Amino acid sequence: MISGTADLVVVIGDPVAQVRAPALLNAAFARLGVDGVTVPLHVAPPQLENVLSALGAVENLRGVLLTVPHKLAACAFADRRSAAAEQAGSANALWRAPNGRWHAENFDGLGFVTGLQDEGRRVEGRDVALFGAGGAGRAIAPALLDAGAASIAVFDPDEARVDELRTRAERWWPGRVRRGGVADLAQIDVAVNATPLGMRPGDDLPFDPAKLAGGTLVADIVMEPEITRLLHAAAELGLPTHQGIHMLSGQIDHYLSFFGLRN
Amino acid sequence: MISGTADLVVVIGDPVAQVRAPALLNAAFARLGVDGVTVPLHVAPPQLENVLSALGAVENLRGVLLTVPHKLAACAFADRRSAAAEQAGSANALWRAPNGRWHAENFDGLGFVTGLQDEGRRVEGRDVALFGAGGAGRAIAPALLDAGAASIAVFDPDEARVDELRTRAERWWPGRVRRGGVADLAQIDVAVNATPLGMRPGDDLPFDPAKLAGGTLVADIVMEPEITRLLHAAAELGLPTHQGIHMLSGQIDHYLSFFGLRN
Repeated sequence: MISGTADLVVVIGDPVAQVRAPALLNAAFARLGVDGVTVPLHVAPPQLENVLSALGAVENLRGVLLTVPHKLAACAFADRRSAAAEQAGSANALWRAPNGRWHAENFDGLGFVTGLQDEGRRVEGRDVALFGAGGAGRAIAPALLDAGAASIAVFDPDEARVDELRTRAERWWPGRVRRGGVADLAQIDVAVNATPLGMRPGDDLPFDPAKLAGGTLVADIVMEPEITRLLHAAAELGLPTHQGIHMLSGQIDHYLSFFGLRN
Repeated sequence: MISGTADLVVVIGDPVAQVRAPALLNAAFARLGVDGVTVPLHVAPPQLENVLSALGAVENLRGVLLTVPHKLAACAFADRRSAAAEQAGSANALWRAPNGRWHAENFDGLGFVTGLQDEGRRVEGRDVALFGAGGAGRAIAPALLDAGAASIAVFDPDEARVDELRTRAERWWPGRVRRGGVADLAQIDVAVNATPLGMRPGDDLPFDPAKLAGGTLVADIVMEPEITRLLHAAAELGLPTHQGIHMLSGQIDHYLSFFGLRN
């Protein structure tokens, strides 16, 4: 039952039909007795800044979550950035402080690692192939390294993005991030799709799981469909798989704290 | 369960905690199987135009409802106005057409009359005292006249607003609207509070129900609290009363049609 006193959280994406955060956050609100509601907003990139500025004037707004393709722009829009957002150069959560300033956070990396651990997957000491050096990839890489991943081979057709991710990581975890090459595929323990490929029915696979060694864990961050073409192909090859939803479910508690929505 | 595919309706007010439209519309969505959600937005008047402009860029937005104090500004903001909105000079609903233009409607008057009729109260031939010539009063007066009310005596400390309402009505219902005076109170059949007085605990009464003749119906448009101080005082005097919620419940079907949200 949504009353006039409800606090508001919005999830902004383009597209937005695939987002699962409203369902998970609203379930958390119900469980915790929080008078709040989370709704999707479909906003195209050229309109993002206008919409965020206007949301700053909505007094019962408590927070904004952002998904593809808005995470880089949201980070740039904010007045202050957490270490995780700064490091990733992208934000998936904005909180408007009482003084009207926007604080950016990025829970994708933490959520991804927590999701792996919750499913019993080891991160420490693992060699990882990360596909996609955009907003999600730049959030996941430092969280994996922080959790003890041995190395990350980064694949992205945009070499400047790969270099930027590597340069950022070099400062804290020297020598553990490299540009990925064909030879890496057969030697890693975990292959992560951090691109949006798989959201649309006609999308190419982000990589060919047949090139992976047996036992390599194939993890996706795409949540809708739950079983992407990549996960389906990996499972058919007998590889273990890890669904995108785990990255989100690992973030819900962090959102509630960040937005001040715990009872 | 709110998914990423939900269509969005927002209710904008200042304050907004009192609004009942989200509860009623969400119940209607559930009943009709509409994939939609209605949420409150608390927006101060100087920010209204920015927020409406930004909402125009939210692709899953299906409509906006407006309450105090935004109805006049919303009518002015729209690109097109219905006859009811034009006549009232105020709007309580905005629909963004596929071409991006905003259409203004005002269902307050129709909802108020429907609410009276649904409760078995006759409008035809009745003499009415209307307190408040703002957005709500200007919407209710033509609907009452259209439904056959014999006369309306209008009370508002802002005489220019009374004159404006009378001038607008004169064109269609000559001689049936007058400025109200003390002598009117004992002679009318229905007294309507169309001011916001009663929303806040310390508010004055919009008029003194002790000055009304026995049997005069006292109707309020304030919905929260359900029993306003005015309705409480009238009931204590033995007068019949009519709650504000009826004006809203009579509008729900019209909203659904206007926003194209019927399944």
